[in-house]
Amino acid sequence: MDNPIAAFQQVREYTESLAAPLSPEDQTVQSMPDTSPTKWHRAHVTWFFETFVLADLESGFSPFQDDYWFLFNSYYESVGPQYARPSRGVITRPGAHEVGDYRGNVDNRMLELIDRLDEGSLTKILPTLELGFHHEQQHQELLLMDIKHVLSMNPMNPAYAGSPSPLGLAEPLGWVDIEGGLVDIGHSPGSEAGPAFCFDNELPAHQQWLTPYRIADRLVTNGEWLEFMTDGGYEQHRWWLSDGWASVKAEGWRSPLYWKQVDGVWVEHTLHGTHPINPALPVCHISHYEADAYAAWAGRRLPSEAEWEHAVRLHGGSDGNVADRETFHPRAASANRAHVIRQAIGDVWEWTASAYLPYPGYHIPDGAIGEYNGKFMSGQMVLRGGSALTPAGHTRPTYRNFFPPGARWVMSGVRLADDGQAA
Amino acid sequence: MDNPIAAFQQVREYTESLAAPLSPEDQTVQSMPDTSPTKWHRAHVTWFFETFVLADLESGFSPFQDDYWFLFNSYYESVGPQYARPSRGVITRPGAHEVGDYRGNVDNRMLELIDRLDEGSLTKILPTLELGFHHEQQHQELLLMDIKHVLSMNPMNPAYAGSPSPLGLAEPLGWVDIEGGLVDIGHSPGSEAGPAFCFDNELPAHQQWLTPYRIADRLVTNGEWLEFMTDGGYEQHRWWLSDGWASVKAEGWRSPLYWKQVDGVWVEHTLHGTHPINPALPVCHISHYEADAYAAWAGRRLPSEAEWEHAVRLHGGSDGNVADRETFHPRAASANRAHVIRQAIGDVWEWTASAYLPYPGYHIPDGAIGEYNGKFMSGQMVLRGGSALTPAGHTRPTYRNFFPPGARWVMSGVRLADDGQAA
Amino acid sequence: MDNPIAAFQQVREYTESLAAPLSPEDQTVQSMPDTSPTKWHRAHVTWFFETFVLADLESGFSPFQDDYWFLFNSYYESVGPQYARPSRGVITRPGAHEVGDYRGNVDNRMLELIDRLDEGSLTKILPTLELGFHHEQQHQELLLMDIKHVLSMNPMNPAYAGSPSPLGLAEPLGWVDIEGGLVDIGHSPGSEAGPAFCFDNELPAHQQWLTPYRIADRLVTNGEWLEFMTDGGYEQHRWWLSDGWASVKAEGWRSPLYWKQVDGVWVEHTLHGTHPINPALPVCHISHYEADAYAAWAGRRLPSEAEWEHAVRLHGGSDGNVADRETFHPRAASANRAHVIRQAIGDVWEWTASAYLPYPGYHIPDGAIGEYNGKFMSGQMVLRGGSALTPAGHTRPTYRNFFPPGARWVMSGVRLADDGQAA
Amino acid sequence: MDNPIAAFQQVREYTESLAAPLSPEDQTVQSMPDTSPTKWHRAHVTWFFETFVLADLESGFSPFQDDYWFLFNSYYESVGPQYARPSRGVITRPGAHEVGDYRGNVDNRMLELIDRLDEGSLTKILPTLELGFHHEQQHQELLLMDIKHVLSMNPMNPAYAGSPSPLGLAEPLGWVDIEGGLVDIGHSPGSEAGPAFCFDNELPAHQQWLTPYRIADRLVTNGEWLEFMTDGGYEQHRWWLSDGWASVKAEGWRSPLYWKQVDGVWVEHTLHGTHPINPALPVCHISHYEADAYAAWAGRRLPSEAEWEHAVRLHGGSDGNVADRETFHPRAASANRAHVIRQAIGDVWEWTASAYLPYPGYHIPDGAIGEYNGKFMSGQMVLRGGSALTPAGHTRPTYRNFFPPGARWVMSGVRLADDGQAA
Repeated sequence: MDNPIAAFQQVREYTESLAAPLSPEDQTVQSMPDTSPTKWHRAHVTWFFETFVLADLESGFSPFQDDYWFLFNSYYESVGPQYARPSRGVITRPGAHEVGDYRGNVDNRMLELIDRLDEGSLTKILPTLELGFHHEQQHQELLLMDIKHVLSMNPMNPAYAGSPSPLGLAEPLGWVDIEGGLVDIGHSPGSEAGPAFCFDNELPAHQQWLTPYRIADRLVTNGEWLEFMTDGGYEQHRWWLSDGWASVKAEGWRSPLYWKQVDGVWVEHTLHGTHPINPALPVCHISHYEADAYAAWAGRRLPSEAEWEHAVRLHGGSDGNVADRETFHPRAASANRAHVIRQAIGDVWEWTASAYLPYPGYHIPDGAIGEYNGKFMSGQMVLRGGSALTPAGHTRPTYRNFFPPGARWVMSGVRLADDGQAA
Repeated sequence: MDNPIAAFQQVREYTESLAAPLSPEDQTVQSMPDTSPTKWHRAHVTWFFETFVLADLESGFSPFQDDYWFLFNSYYESVGPQYARPSRGVITRPGAHEVGDYRGNVDNRMLELIDRLDEGSLTKILPTLELGFHHEQQHQELLLMDIKHVLSMNPMNPAYAGSPSPLGLAEPLGWVDIEGGLVDIGHSPGSEAGPAFCFDNELPAHQQWLTPYRIADRLVTNGEWLEFMTDGGYEQHRWWLSDGWASVKAEGWRSPLYWKQVDGVWVEHTLHGTHPINPALPVCHISHYEADAYAAWAGRRLPSEAEWEHAVRLHGGSDGNVADRETFHPRAASANRAHVIRQAIGDVWEWTASAYLPYPGYHIPDGAIGEYNGKFMSGQMVLRGGSALTPAGHTRPTYRNFFPPGARWVMSGVRLADDGQAA
Repeated sequence: MDNPIAAFQQVREYTESLAAPLSPEDQTVQSMPDTSPTKWHRAHVTWFFETFVLADLESGFSPFQDDYWFLFNSYYESVGPQYARPSRGVITRPGAHEVGDYRGNVDNRMLELIDRLDEGSLTKILPTLELGFHHEQQHQELLLMDIKHVLSMNPMNPAYAGSPSPLGLAEPLGWVDIEGGLVDIGHSPGSEAGPAFCFDNELPAHQQWLTPYRIADRLVTNGEWLEFMTDGGYEQHRWWLSDGWASVKAEGWRSPLYWKQVDGVWVEHTLHGTHPINPALPVCHISHYEADAYAAWAGRRLPSEAEWEHAVRLHGGSDGNVADRETFHPRAASANRAHVIRQAIGDVWEWTASAYLPYPGYHIPDGAIGEYNGKFMSGQMVLRGGSALTPAGHTRPTYRNFFPPGARWVMSGVRLADDGQAA
Repeated sequence: MDNPIAAFQQVREYTESLAAPLSPEDQTVQSMPDTSPTKWHRAHVTWFFETFVLADLESGFSPFQDDYWFLFNSYYESVGPQYARPSRGVITRPGAHEVGDYRGNVDNRMLELIDRLDEGSLTKILPTLELGFHHEQQHQELLLMDIKHVLSMNPMNPAYAGSPSPLGLAEPLGWVDIEGGLVDIGHSPGSEAGPAFCFDNELPAHQQWLTPYRIADRLVTNGEWLEFMTDGGYEQHRWWLSDGWASVKAEGWRSPLYWKQVDGVWVEHTLHGTHPINPALPVCHISHYEADAYAAWAGRRLPSEAEWEHAVRLHGGSDGNVADRETFHPRAASANRAHVIRQAIGDVWEWTASAYLPYPGYHIPDGAIGEYNGKFMSGQMVLRGGSALTPAGHTRPTYRNFFPPGARWVMSGVRLADDGQAA
């Protein structure tokens, strides 16, 4: 990180720019236990810097507000008790404006602190600082996911901002054959796999044995998903995991989340408002259960996370070319070069066949920071890639995102894989 | 109603004055399914005039906003489907300011309409107009009850407004003996029982046979309630109805709602903030189960609604003398005249021993207005009197308020009664 | 009670005769939290005598089995903790046979005790003894209600015993006009209102003021109920109390409990098996909400419990003429004498418009027996009359049965009433 | 399988011998949604043969009882609808005796069929037959697990049968170092890994890459678990996965299931009754969350399923030497030979660190049999080994058992592992 002050300012300002189109009312609501209010996100990422940097290093530190210590702790048991997550939406004060004051105060203190530190001290806190940047970037995506869900509850179909992608045609789906063998998995600083920073769950770099496989060169599209629906995909138990089928029946799923039929036409709630389905775009807002059922219906399967990572390292997809990220919408696949895996970074997160578990040799770090990732390694599935809501530069091929298999408010899609043939 | 325009303006302005101290965030939140957001209350009472007056009488009527027809219908099945009540708190738009625009628009149209109507037409709509005023007054009290509950969820103990009543001593409790016999119950226009207007559930006026009884001349105080608590009132099943005892255990009740012990001192969340219990004030925010248990512990019982009404007609309590209504807090009983029933109107609603059922000869009115009261005559208990949050002039001795026996966010208290002796 | 030993033997033997057709498996199951296993009923009524008679009077008393003290206490907090009611169905031991041993042991000890007591001591315990008989009779009806529910869960449509009533035609519905005024309500020993014994909730005898009313001379029939269904009774909110309508939607009610449509024909699960609906029989297994909605649809109302009691005292219905009680099925109304209220006792319990509340002057008795009735006077509605499952001689015109308004596994039906005209 | 008739008779008789000590009442109850009544198990395994063998091959087949087709289908959507699993305990008929009749009937028809088949036809159905045997063996263990849970609900502490293991001392825990590399995983017929039969989820045999590791040579004992408890293991969040900690708080876990403290002494409900904890025996009835937390507290981790399988293939444990299987209780580790992994088969199932997912190249078989395993590969964790309740010969080193991470009524324990050092 060349310039921590610039990096800090950039990440902090981007958060505020995402909240800018939202009214105080928009920023207050929690639409389900999984989501958080916008103003809570803005405050929590601020609390993170206050707790893990200022409290340690600021001389004569005292918290901006004692109660914030409790209100804006998400899940760090080591730091102290936390306000109950499902009740974040009943807290009206501090309001959106006062959260802005809190942010300004911590920004000033952080900038002053960084400015004042000598080289040695700065080097020591750089990892925590960098973790704070990436943490805030994660919440930038969550903020958008969550407000999308909040606005979807409103029968008036309000939009967040922006305008939809133009219609287009999806390219034909191609397959990339991969040989496998003993392959490198996980993050190695300085390697081609990504930048210096990574989360602890991408470590340690290690080897896995892969048998030959094939992987699709683009994502499954809305148009293909409509075929699945038309073929009775949501009505036939045979494609579904048992838990998935139970969810279909209990939740009444018959399309991706945010789709609904209006006068016989399928439309989709997006951050730009409600629009007819664009068949060329990657399907989005499906659970792992739906991804798995689709793959079974298509006679394929999901890739394991190691298969995905190895394929993308060999053949794929930086996120540098997401020109229209500000539209917050996945792109239709546009290129069709041989052996290139398209849409791997920056369209939709891709469900894999892998449960979210520690890599061989992984150890949970000591202290509160150790609660960041390790304690969630149970009951969740890994997603790879990144989405149109992921901040630029945040993700990489070794990045491990994770959600429970029934989660649908994630920007999640599916890429098919299949068994290959030994050479 | 001498001047419907003045009356309309007054009730509408009072609602806005109650919302004035609240931020957009405060006005958005629903803290439990029973409560509604402030901006919802402001919009719903407006919808009431738009639906039941303007839609009928305005030439070329069209709704201010089609979706509001659905969003702000509380429970009128005859008018159409309703947005799900427990989800009122996930609607961020229209925001508090846009609700203000809605109110302004309907106010103007209503004033224009009333102004333009000839005497005959005005006479015809006066009952609906008057119902709208009293409806809005009911929501004025609900608005305050609900925001009190919202703010109580916040660990930062925020206040709504105002300052608490001064401490004082409660007067000794006296008893008023009442002979009973065949007594008049229910509302008769022009009688001493109250003003011309009443709700349909106060009709028809009829007779009931009462055996001799006694009724307390003031409400049970916080100090007396503390004695009940100290004597193990919340720990001994013997005082409780079976459903009440189940609630004590399931909900962990050990004091009235909003009371908590801080460093050994009992304090109370109020609209003015959190303060030590004032032992001279009437106890408030208790369920019917608690009122009944207290009465059993005290060796007494609750009055029936007929006993209450008859006693207050004979010996009690206009609400003209509530000087400090704006403090939103019940008064300590201050007078001690013989045979006067004090604190009957305008302190706390008083739980009675009567289930909320139709009076003999009651018929549900036709049409949507018929849904106002009749369909709720099941599973609820009657409260009589009025509270410090009740708008001036809204209540009267025949007024029947009603809530489920477990409700505690109501401004509800208790007055004791006992069997008397035949002369 | 002329001969307590004979009375004791008779009630005890009748319980065993009701359980005789049931296998150990049948006797073990609890089909919902409201019901209890047959063997639990058999043991609990035995525990009642052991606890309230033997423990007091037997010299050197020790319980048959210490654990039974806990397992078979229904809700007597004063006696000690109780095994959780909804879990009665997971207790496999003692089995049905061992419960028989328990019954035999207590029977012998009871008979020995009664035999040995001198006149004075006997007189003193007679009220408790008699309460035990009537308590066991209540459980005889519950046993049948509950096993009916258990067997209804089985897709194989098993029968308990017996054969159905013959088809017949319902008599036309007539109306009986009643003048009202100050009438006697409640039980007075030695009066025409019934035998010497009554439950405490029928006391004290008192007066109520009734305005003129009319009451139907027979119950609503299955055939009439089908008209209500055909007319969309279960699809139109306008007939329903708000809580009732919520139940219709939440529970998916579209007919009485135990009715289902097989190949277009409505059939009914009964204790004799599953049979086509007999249109002449009284409708049964409806909730209070359904009874109220039916009455609204018919342009009538339910009688209050005082109206019912007064009408039956004047014009109605002993239960001496229930010739075919052993068929456990209500009779079609067969007589049509002027001013006779038919089917008042021994067909189906009749929902009234009255909440279950204490009579004026009622006081809960001291001690554990005080938990028998008083603590349940909340949230329930009164039913009057008696059903085909009620043991002969158990009920009377002053008898107050009570269940929550949503209960449907009760043998409950409806008789219409209406406002009358002052003479 | 040399003699299918003898094998069939043996497995069928063993089931009946397990049910023999149980009364009809015992056999009827379902104590939680996860468990099934004994008589349901006895009928369901019979239905399996009737559905998958007789219905295919018996000439003029008709089901023993049409309704059984529905009642005793567990989860085979392809066969038809199923009676709701959580309601299995409300079915009283067929009773235990009639289920015996059903078993006898199917046994006779099966024996007749097998006897009559020519060699070719027999060869064709052998895989289904063998699956039926192993299926029934799985239910033999479930039957015991489930009745253990049923009896645990009874405050009278009833026993199933047998007597407890003698007290003893646990051997010191040793470690076996394993080199890893590219190792064989999964079932290969004829290899040293086990007998010819396996379930589809053990296929295909494939290779995995393992880094060096160490594995404990015996299971964690009750005595060691008590140390964990004494050290505050259940009170400190730091050892727990987030979902695990949530379960600790929600379920109030503070010891393994079936342990309770009586007068300060920890006792355990077993199939022999309730006895003081034997510190030398392997700890049992712990969830995956508890196993994981224990390992974290001990500074170790759980083995992956591949690590376990590879270690046991190299160094461990047939189940031939379980001399006292009939006591249904795990053995204290008694041998201490170098490099032998003790208690690997036939004591308690061992939680691994692996989610239950398909092996590379696994495909779900076509037809109803395809529902046996594949559709459950979501949300569960793998257990390896076998328990004292597992029928002799049923399990093998490649056997993959699986349960949700919160399940505790399984005979489940824990063996520690650790990272090794590259040679």
